[in-house]
Amino acid sequence: MKNRIITISREFGSGGRTVGKRTAEQLGIPCYDRELIQKIAGKSGFAEGYIKSLDETAPGGFLASAFSNRTFGQTNEDYLWNIQRKVILELAEQGPCVIVGRCADFILRDQADCLTVFIHADLAFRAQRIVQVYGEREDSPEQRIRDKDKRRAAYHRFYTDMKWGYAKNDQISLDSGLLGIDACVEVLKMLY
Amino acid sequence: MKNRIITISREFGSGGRTVGKRTAEQLGIPCYDRELIQKIAGKSGFAEGYIKSLDETAPGGFLASAFSNRTFGQTNEDYLWNIQRKVILELAEQGPCVIVGRCADFILRDQADCLTVFIHADLAFRAQRIVQVYGEREDSPEQRIRDKDKRRAAYHRFYTDMKWGYAKNDQISLDSGLLGIDACVEVLKMLY
Repeated sequence: MKNRIITISREFGSGGRTVGKRTAEQLGIPCYDRELIQKIAGKSGFAEGYIKSLDETAPGGFLASAFSNRTFGQTNEDYLWNIQRKVILELAEQGPCVIVGRCADFILRDQADCLTVFIHADLAFRAQRIVQVYGEREDSPEQRIRDKDKRRAAYHRFYTDMKWGYAKNDQISLDSGLLGIDACVEVLKMLY
Repeated sequence: MKNRIITISREFGSGGRTVGKRTAEQLGIPCYDRELIQKIAGKSGFAEGYIKSLDETAPGGFLASAFSNRTFGQTNEDYLWNIQRKVILELAEQGPCVIVGRCADFILRDQADCLTVFIHADLAFRAQRIVQVYGEREDSPEQRIRDKDKRRAAYHRFYTDMKWGYAKNDQISLDSGLLGIDACVEVLKMLY
């Protein structure tokens, strides 16, 4: 019997990270989010800021690479993907946990007793949230969300070949805007 | 305060109808599935079998109509859509209930205190289920499911302009194959 893991994919501003953290706290298990980036940084030698930025820019990076250094060997993105994959598989071996983002749903899909979750919400809810919670600047948070959505979808699609946003990618998808963050946490605790 | 309604969209063979019926039973509220078709038949004058078949064939019917009688007035499909819409809105006014299929998620989206649900499962689970539960013939249940999926998606897309299968269409999407039918029922009862 493998460890029980919850993976959380989420739209930017949906509160998916908060759902993951609260669920983990209430279940008394660790939640890996920024810690994941620290671990990948430690193993790869790249700076945390650079790794974090790849969540947004990898596919662009890939397209650029396709016409430059890709033919001469592994890109930074591919190198980091392999380390990320290894780190996530190791965490899943260590014990029950919640893992936010980083395509963990795809990486752990056949590896563990895994509950895969997608958190989404409409644009208005997310725009309000990134201004209030993250302190994002208020001029056009909607445009910032659309950009992040596109980049995250492209990144996920490139490495997993899954269509971002499709219900069938995950065992459960929840609208945190209409259901509320606390209700999402309660549902995940019940299914754990 | 509007009545609390649960709408269930579902992939063919996923057990979405069973989830709806069990949830309604346990909540002590009515579940409309075949009853919906009876009501639409009563109001429209069309036979139940014909109405039921439109869930599969409307868009093809539409394409055919587009080059024939559509320009001369309302098609049967459009006529039935309007009656269906009216029946669903009336049911939602009458009291709390579960409504399975028939684009009720879209029709009630802004009308009621509505929990919109999508039930899906992988092809293997659904193929096994339609043979065991519905007594479908065993030669290529997978092909039958693919056909039904396509038709249902096209029907839904035509009348709602939503992309079938997208998590963002509904407040909650559940994989009945991996989570189990009973767990889906428990989640919906919790969120009700």
